[in-house]
Amino acid sequence: MQTKTESKTTLPKEGHFSEWYNEILKRAEILDIRYPVKGVYVWYPYGFKLRNLIYTTLRTFMDKEHEEVLFPMLIPKDELMKEEEHIKGFEEEVFWVTKGGTTELDIPLALRPTSETAIYPVFKVWIRSHRDLPLRVYQIVNTFRYETKHTRPLIRLREITSFKEAHTAHANLADAEEQVKIAIALYRKFFDLLDVPYIITRRPDWDKFPGAAYTLAFDTLMPDGRTMQIGTIHLLGESFARTFDIKYEDNAGSLQYVNQTCYGISERCVAAVISIHGDEHGLVLPPEVSPIQVVIVPIVFSGKAESGEGEVKKACAAVYEDLETAGIRAFLDDSEERPGAKYYRWEMKGVPLRIEIGPRDLRNNSCEFVRRDNFQRVHVPLHDAVPEVKRTLEEVQSSIHGRAKEALVANIHERVGSDAGTVEEMRALKNKAEHGIVSLFLCDSARCGKDLEEHLDASVLGEPLHEAEMRDKSEGKCIICSRKARRVYVARTY
Amino acid sequence: MQTKTESKTTLPKEGHFSEWYNEILKRAEILDIRYPVKGVYVWYPYGFKLRNLIYTTLRTFMDKEHEEVLFPMLIPKDELMKEEEHIKGFEEEVFWVTKGGTTELDIPLALRPTSETAIYPVFKVWIRSHRDLPLRVYQIVNTFRYETKHTRPLIRLREITSFKEAHTAHANLADAEEQVKIAIALYRKFFDLLDVPYIITRRPDWDKFPGAAYTLAFDTLMPDGRTMQIGTIHLLGESFARTFDIKYEDNAGSLQYVNQTCYGISERCVAAVISIHGDEHGLVLPPEVSPIQVVIVPIVFSGKAESGEGEVKKACAAVYEDLETAGIRAFLDDSEERPGAKYYRWEMKGVPLRIEIGPRDLRNNSCEFVRRDNFQRVHVPLHDAVPEVKRTLEEVQSSIHGRAKEALVANIHERVGSDAGTVEEMRALKNKAEHGIVSLFLCDSARCGKDLEEHLDASVLGEPLHEAEMRDKSEGKCIICSRKARRVYVARTY
Repeated sequence: MQTKTESKTTLPKEGHFSEWYNEILKRAEILDIRYPVKGVYVWYPYGFKLRNLIYTTLRTFMDKEHEEVLFPMLIPKDELMKEEEHIKGFEEEVFWVTKGGTTELDIPLALRPTSETAIYPVFKVWIRSHRDLPLRVYQIVNTFRYETKHTRPLIRLREITSFKEAHTAHANLADAEEQVKIAIALYRKFFDLLDVPYIITRRPDWDKFPGAAYTLAFDTLMPDGRTMQIGTIHLLGESFARTFDIKYEDNAGSLQYVNQTCYGISERCVAAVISIHGDEHGLVLPPEVSPIQVVIVPIVFSGKAESGEGEVKKACAAVYEDLETAGIRAFLDDSEERPGAKYYRWEMKGVPLRIEIGPRDLRNNSCEFVRRDNFQRVHVPLHDAVPEVKRTLEEVQSSIHGRAKEALVANIHERVGSDAGTVEEMRALKNKAEHGIVSLFLCDSARCGKDLEEHLDASVLGEPLHEAEMRDKSEGKCIICSRKARRVYVARTY
Repeated sequence: MQTKTESKTTLPKEGHFSEWYNEILKRAEILDIRYPVKGVYVWYPYGFKLRNLIYTTLRTFMDKEHEEVLFPMLIPKDELMKEEEHIKGFEEEVFWVTKGGTTELDIPLALRPTSETAIYPVFKVWIRSHRDLPLRVYQIVNTFRYETKHTRPLIRLREITSFKEAHTAHANLADAEEQVKIAIALYRKFFDLLDVPYIITRRPDWDKFPGAAYTLAFDTLMPDGRTMQIGTIHLLGESFARTFDIKYEDNAGSLQYVNQTCYGISERCVAAVISIHGDEHGLVLPPEVSPIQVVIVPIVFSGKAESGEGEVKKACAAVYEDLETAGIRAFLDDSEERPGAKYYRWEMKGVPLRIEIGPRDLRNNSCEFVRRDNFQRVHVPLHDAVPEVKRTLEEVQSSIHGRAKEALVANIHERVGSDAGTVEEMRALKNKAEHGIVSLFLCDSARCGKDLEEHLDASVLGEPLHEAEMRDKSEGKCIICSRKARRVYVARTY
């Protein structure tokens, strides 16, 4: 049964994603956008709790195979400039500190846009012998980009407040490639827990991370049909090792360059959780990362003698205690507000499950569960509350996941045929790219890639990787030049 | 019984505190100082674990009465400049971002030296009515100071990586003053858990936080006789509220300025733990915050048939499992190194308790405990290992505390007499100030304060607060001008 609560102030989502997104950040108290610097925002307490749960999850996964460290935020210009290709990718985007007090600095300091050039000079002194390898560290830090395009909270920022970046060094290429697989598996698990579906592609050579041998990326599909990059994994090979002179002594006593990887996730993971699951009533949070998993609302009408207020409040408190004891993040909302106002608030904040207990429920020794994801209502015997909560939260977790995954899969549009595209077909594909991902054959050349991007007003994401991280084996003809080509995904992107 | 392990490479501490400090940061792998920017350092994994345990403790305390938030790092120049007194205190110390990419910024952006001017413009929009008060938030962030003096890891930094700053707003002065007391109690509990002893003083008016009504400070005594400020609490009153126009509507419907407080703790708390407890063998960590609380070392001599290696390793693994199950952070060091090398490493890293198990111990169904703080050795029956570990860790925790507290108290030198100081006496007091804290009478005037500081080559910390946060009531005559004066503490400081 589908019921609705206060609809007076529902958010528009269908077709108005941008307004919905900004509005929900405010109403659910995730971020305050009223800070007087472009592209930087304030985390509200509730938003910060959500962020922390998501990053605690990420830390738990990372800690199994990496050690957490913390490197300085300021990078001297000469270090940043060492890796030529790398800096070319960032030079337009770097914030520069040029003054300390009233003194001009001798060497300008960059606010880290990412930390390769801060970390690798130190790797050089940390790594001496093969016994120091593999070296696998990560940090969660603020990074900075001088974005000149339209900025957007959590998505396109001048201060990325929560960049998780991992950096690893290995004895040889095979070990580094193995690490790439470990990173993919780790990111899969992480996004699965957030119920965020993804595609993994190998970015075209002409669009990889500056300095990398190749770049793999996780993209998710946003409600407006654009994809958003939510994670990247780079095989660096020896390029940075050569620039920063990172060598180790192998078994035989000779010096070798290390092979490196790096991979990162930013607060776009929070943006994805908000955007993909939310609806016109507000957030819909996966139980795994919801600051409150269950809210309990006593249904009492104060002042009426027959209201049974005392018993109801006692029963609510008992359920609350039981849930807390069972390790569930519960909240008892026993404030003076009307129940409807409470429903509105906690639906807006995405609490996965609401338990209502009123006098009538008590007479039946039961309570009522209302799921946030589909507003389904069921009566549950009070003594079954805890196990039923657990079961329901699991159900919500997987049901949200299923829904999101379906939406992604349904919006991958495969091009039929493998000839060069006609003008009409290009126009049709362009339309499709407005509502999801287009899958077609494209050759390696940057020229064909750029050409296609222009035709479709969309970006080439790259070759899809399937389960078990295998590259798509199918071959066809490039839609532009008809030469031999591999399958790629194309989409409008954030 | 006091025994010693490998003494080949002990650290000098007595009389060589600085060298000892730098050396231990390296050898215990707390911070790497080889980063190519002055005054910023790299947290090693082990150091970062220690930092995290200390800050997790702090968070737990803070979360009871505050909500965690996160404000941007960049502060526009016009906001930073609004509070005249405040900026005067910082203008020589602010790093300025003046360029984005290759573009000169319209308004220079400061790297936050502290966040009053980032947070209070947002408080203005968050606070509307008395129902929004009290507002109590905190954040743990990196802050920046352009230090021109000698920098020192964890103590005097250009990037403070872990500044915990709390900011509160209240309906009236009484509530704000009450919050000051709450903050003192909270900081007391926190430093007690770190076994870091402290004195609390009210800083002289001429040395308070820029913009505050008054400043209270926690100082601890470092092994070289200097005090180090490890926490500050500021009653701001209405000064910032007036500057940033932070008002609320009271019960009667009229607009009132809020009353504010703010208080902070930086990674100097980590510096204090390291410096105060450490000895010539390395760190001595309080069990509460030690990344590893117990290390288990199997005493086996591989290759010898009669070594009983298998049984020993099995017994060690069993003890390890039991400790982990009991929630104790244990580490089983079953690497191939000699036991002596292991002792050396874990003593250096400050692990509070070592358990050794060898074939002889096994024959007696026992193991050997070695405490890090005093190297005491005792035999413990294997089946008592877990409860005995718990008991011992508590003992270590309080014994470290007692030792540190004693050292502090013993080094507070009270001046006898209350007349104006003679030249000879000043010289004597100056000597005392080289080895701790001098307690004497001094009037309020900045002139006498500065005069005394010059005579003693030391700083006036301020009036001591005793238990229950009462000001010292005793009165005497100012050592400089003989006018009525209150007791103050004076010391050389970090």
